[in-house]
Amino acid sequence: VAARIGIVGASGYGGAELLRLLAGHGGVEVAVVAAHAQAGAPVASLFPNLGGLDADRTFDDVDVDRLVDLDLVFLSTPHGPAVELGATLLEAGVPTIDLSAAFRLPADDFATWYGEPHPRPDLTPAVYGLTEYARDAVASADLVANPGCYVTTALLGLLPLADAIEPGTVVVDGKSGTSGAGRAVSDRLHATHVAGGVNAYGSPTHRHTREIETGLAAFAPDLGAVSFTPHLLPVARGLLTTSYATLRDGVGADDVQGALVDRYRDEPFVHVLAPGAFPTTKAVLGSNGCQLSAVVDPRTGRVTVVAVTDNLGKGAAGQALQNANLRLGLPETAGLTAIGVYP
Amino acid sequence: VAARIGIVGASGYGGAELLRLLAGHGGVEVAVVAAHAQAGAPVASLFPNLGGLDADRTFDDVDVDRLVDLDLVFLSTPHGPAVELGATLLEAGVPTIDLSAAFRLPADDFATWYGEPHPRPDLTPAVYGLTEYARDAVASADLVANPGCYVTTALLGLLPLADAIEPGTVVVDGKSGTSGAGRAVSDRLHATHVAGGVNAYGSPTHRHTREIETGLAAFAPDLGAVSFTPHLLPVARGLLTTSYATLRDGVGADDVQGALVDRYRDEPFVHVLAPGAFPTTKAVLGSNGCQLSAVVDPRTGRVTVVAVTDNLGKGAAGQALQNANLRLGLPETAGLTAIGVYP
Amino acid sequence: VAARIGIVGASGYGGAELLRLLAGHGGVEVAVVAAHAQAGAPVASLFPNLGGLDADRTFDDVDVDRLVDLDLVFLSTPHGPAVELGATLLEAGVPTIDLSAAFRLPADDFATWYGEPHPRPDLTPAVYGLTEYARDAVASADLVANPGCYVTTALLGLLPLADAIEPGTVVVDGKSGTSGAGRAVSDRLHATHVAGGVNAYGSPTHRHTREIETGLAAFAPDLGAVSFTPHLLPVARGLLTTSYATLRDGVGADDVQGALVDRYRDEPFVHVLAPGAFPTTKAVLGSNGCQLSAVVDPRTGRVTVVAVTDNLGKGAAGQALQNANLRLGLPETAGLTAIGVYP
Amino acid sequence: VAARIGIVGASGYGGAELLRLLAGHGGVEVAVVAAHAQAGAPVASLFPNLGGLDADRTFDDVDVDRLVDLDLVFLSTPHGPAVELGATLLEAGVPTIDLSAAFRLPADDFATWYGEPHPRPDLTPAVYGLTEYARDAVASADLVANPGCYVTTALLGLLPLADAIEPGTVVVDGKSGTSGAGRAVSDRLHATHVAGGVNAYGSPTHRHTREIETGLAAFAPDLGAVSFTPHLLPVARGLLTTSYATLRDGVGADDVQGALVDRYRDEPFVHVLAPGAFPTTKAVLGSNGCQLSAVVDPRTGRVTVVAVTDNLGKGAAGQALQNANLRLGLPETAGLTAIGVYP
Repeated sequence: VAARIGIVGASGYGGAELLRLLAGHGGVEVAVVAAHAQAGAPVASLFPNLGGLDADRTFDDVDVDRLVDLDLVFLSTPHGPAVELGATLLEAGVPTIDLSAAFRLPADDFATWYGEPHPRPDLTPAVYGLTEYARDAVASADLVANPGCYVTTALLGLLPLADAIEPGTVVVDGKSGTSGAGRAVSDRLHATHVAGGVNAYGSPTHRHTREIETGLAAFAPDLGAVSFTPHLLPVARGLLTTSYATLRDGVGADDVQGALVDRYRDEPFVHVLAPGAFPTTKAVLGSNGCQLSAVVDPRTGRVTVVAVTDNLGKGAAGQALQNANLRLGLPETAGLTAIGVYP
Repeated sequence: VAARIGIVGASGYGGAELLRLLAGHGGVEVAVVAAHAQAGAPVASLFPNLGGLDADRTFDDVDVDRLVDLDLVFLSTPHGPAVELGATLLEAGVPTIDLSAAFRLPADDFATWYGEPHPRPDLTPAVYGLTEYARDAVASADLVANPGCYVTTALLGLLPLADAIEPGTVVVDGKSGTSGAGRAVSDRLHATHVAGGVNAYGSPTHRHTREIETGLAAFAPDLGAVSFTPHLLPVARGLLTTSYATLRDGVGADDVQGALVDRYRDEPFVHVLAPGAFPTTKAVLGSNGCQLSAVVDPRTGRVTVVAVTDNLGKGAAGQALQNANLRLGLPETAGLTAIGVYP
Repeated sequence: VAARIGIVGASGYGGAELLRLLAGHGGVEVAVVAAHAQAGAPVASLFPNLGGLDADRTFDDVDVDRLVDLDLVFLSTPHGPAVELGATLLEAGVPTIDLSAAFRLPADDFATWYGEPHPRPDLTPAVYGLTEYARDAVASADLVANPGCYVTTALLGLLPLADAIEPGTVVVDGKSGTSGAGRAVSDRLHATHVAGGVNAYGSPTHRHTREIETGLAAFAPDLGAVSFTPHLLPVARGLLTTSYATLRDGVGADDVQGALVDRYRDEPFVHVLAPGAFPTTKAVLGSNGCQLSAVVDPRTGRVTVVAVTDNLGKGAAGQALQNANLRLGLPETAGLTAIGVYP
Repeated sequence: VAARIGIVGASGYGGAELLRLLAGHGGVEVAVVAAHAQAGAPVASLFPNLGGLDADRTFDDVDVDRLVDLDLVFLSTPHGPAVELGATLLEAGVPTIDLSAAFRLPADDFATWYGEPHPRPDLTPAVYGLTEYARDAVASADLVANPGCYVTTALLGLLPLADAIEPGTVVVDGKSGTSGAGRAVSDRLHATHVAGGVNAYGSPTHRHTREIETGLAAFAPDLGAVSFTPHLLPVARGLLTTSYATLRDGVGADDVQGALVDRYRDEPFVHVLAPGAFPTTKAVLGSNGCQLSAVVDPRTGRVTVVAVTDNLGKGAAGQALQNANLRLGLPETAGLTAIGVYP
């Protein structure tokens, strides 16, 4: 019997990407496709790619009574509703993967970086679902905090090297497609203002800054405060992080490459390139893949790690499905691929 | 003494492009930069390119008392306010160039295509400011209806051939950058939905359809009803029309090329390419130029005319300034160039 | 036992897209991945998305002895080599799907439009593999001419309406991403010249013009000579055709919509939208889907049909795989989806 | 009498941009437009935007006898020919602005970073033409080395802060449009491979790394080795650098903002934004402007400076013209603007 799952917040990009991926999964039944403000509207009216799938499917209302009967729920809402729904589902014993930032940080960090007290500090932080580093915990977690897109991409590149890095020296320069900023319309996301240009934003208080720091500390020695600057690219999908850090004395290029290759040799979704080969975001478009490579500059003593994901794939819905597969006891790769739609 | 001019609706793309062009004009003083909803806000907060010009300039309120004292006013508002302001300025004897559709069509056509009665049918249609075909009229006009972007581009290609075309056979396929759709935010103009894709819209009732028909009839024999389909391109600026029409018996490729070359030989802003060379929108980016070329297919008896403009240049603000120069007795090319920012 | 297939010309975009699709197929074994000039090079050196699939796979040489042992071969070379290889494979009894133009046209048309005599007129035209219109023929064909991208997209929109269209009135305006122009580098495909612009090309002698005409005549009443103008879009993938035609007397909007809906109701890959809804190329990105819609303008008596595909999907490799599935007796949809990577 | 100038290497993007700018200059006569491989070809065949300017102008051959008669020469060739021509012109007493890297570095650095001995070490380094920091030297220089695009952009942001920065802590993350990589075709600059994606390249041995270091040391205290990673954006024009550096003890946000504002208050082409406002490359498109802003993160003690230019404007031809104006005794801003073609 296929697991019956639900998606709440399916009118957003993360939720809709889950629908797209689940259409090719085979092992689950999508029982609920909820979107509060769009309830009753055809799914294809917002996501024309899904029209061929089931032209008559409409968004459901958010009905907790139905959700608590499911085998697993994805939350893809803003963090406010996610706290409330997550708490309810946890109480009801329904495994939940939350794509928002609601449960990623300890409550005090959340308060500092999100500018509001966390309504349920007792539930924070949830299991942090960077799959490659948290398989066991995810497999038995009742509530998984699915990592942010910049964070996933930066951490996959930095974590294998954390022991070799001097604390306090990490700089992460991120570049993202616009879908990472969500579906809400705004002047800064107007096509006319984005097309053909690039700009930084949010530094130095972008919330993913703290999530990078806590994510590093969760799986490796604490590397201290990180400088992070995100940039908006004139593309819909694609995320690239360029991370700089000073290496400890005696660490060389071979050590760096060895650490990366060793760590990811058996990973289906993370692919290490040779030094000097740099990944393109296009290589992982539409996939759950991450490609990365590193170079060491003996002049500066720094390593530069470049990593790419699809911000809606490994950076959001792909990783959420990867986590759900683990939690449901299904093959981890079900419904997922590391092969991007290139060129 | 420099002419004192005003721009109303300067928070829109057309108005801001006028500001950009006038910064390099030299012969006029921009006395009023009005934008109702943005009054008091720095111009550079909406148009960061203009920050270097005069970082402290703020949008003025729309103050009719100040406008009636000016030597010329550009209206770059929606057509509703434009009717009202245009009527007032006309009464006050202030020459006005209206970039909206308020005065382009006869009142009955306006009612049909815009779905509302025209509040001042007595003022319609104003002098239709397709400059290359209306120089004398523009030079003495009190109210100029500045043509739409698709229309300007299509007409410049079709008009020299109108005598050679069978009525009822014209098809215009238009492609436009997103700035042609204006500054208002919307789901369909969300960067994420536009980036990397293309779609048609608005056919067969797009309002420029009728404007193409009346524009043709204004300067050439009536060619009847036109099929027009606009498309949205994933670029900020650039407009290309591909126009198809059946040639009258006996008209050949040489006749077509001859008609185009003869018509535009002395025009500073319209440039005819050799048959087989096709213009790119990038060649006229940021300029008042139009490039065009035509091919004749003896198998079908049709001519295909391809023309490009910058939809904010010759398709809007550029042509408006060209018209204003004529009306003010200044050199027609002042503040304008036919050289685009390529590549 | 899985069918053993080969791809010749796998260093081109069509061949590589077949590799991507076949990675998710399950029912075939890719035994040969041949690319003459790239033999020995890692597949991932040209197609970084395929690195995760099998990092060590290299391109094979083109070895006819190996090809004749396979169950099916895809030819994705230029038409010159394709004629030779196709003839050899035909003689050897190996079912072949040719993605080039080698066998699409009758030999005399080929000579006219390609400017060279066809070396094997006896083999032309092969079964024309517009799948939805040629299932039975494809299922038993030894040589399938896989249709061109513009042609597939235009025909899927026009064919259901062919009975209702006046011959001699068809105009097709095509817009394509750059991958449709192939991998060879050139000034006109330089990223700097393409980014942010659009241009027409190739009209009126583009070879797909004749293929549209013969394709229409193959499956419907002959509609005579067609006007066709292709345009290059600043995107990697995506194809949109806007087709205009005069309707026969008495044909109305309901007839048009009815004909489209009836024809494609049960098709897994062709999706008809409501009139007034226009498809975006992004809805079918990376998929084998085609979305289309039509509007009728009573003023002109014309129908306008807008259709989108991914030029490497339904416009090339996707349809080739669809045809191969039929020929091999596998489920037609194996390895394929109609759901695009949107947004 | 207008100064008679020449451009060598006018078939490249930098040379053609000079032609575009000089068309609006007024004070110089472009006497020679030389391009070795394109001699005799119409300028408009490579640069369609220039067709309207003078459709009949063709590229000249590189004729030293004509060049030595001019008042000033721009060299826009690769560095090989530039060394030779620069030496000849220097000997002939013709002021020369070289846009290549031929004379930017001391000969030993050149040998290390360019992998070849410098043929004329006696001429290196020439006056380094970062205009805002080298006005007097440029005004009297016989040979000006025009700075690289990444370097100009990074230096304009870092130099006012150099006294406040800890040596050895500078990281520069650069993002550039494809025109910065030149006109030569290649697989990596194929439109299909660039569209919709982003990738890093060249790190850690990109030649601009050393130029940033020597440029900093030329106008400020030596800040030691710099980490630099360039990235390729899917746009034709636009350059953004994000520079990170650790501040000396006691330096705060107000000090940083004050230093930037003080330094550039009277500069016509450099515009400092308020902290928290981030410039977009689109604001300076087609102009000689640079916009920049900085934020300080008290948690890390680092400053992040974001700066944008048009890589063909202030990053190449714009600055070259600015330097030429100084050398010729013309107004520094002649033919230039800080107002970009936005949106």
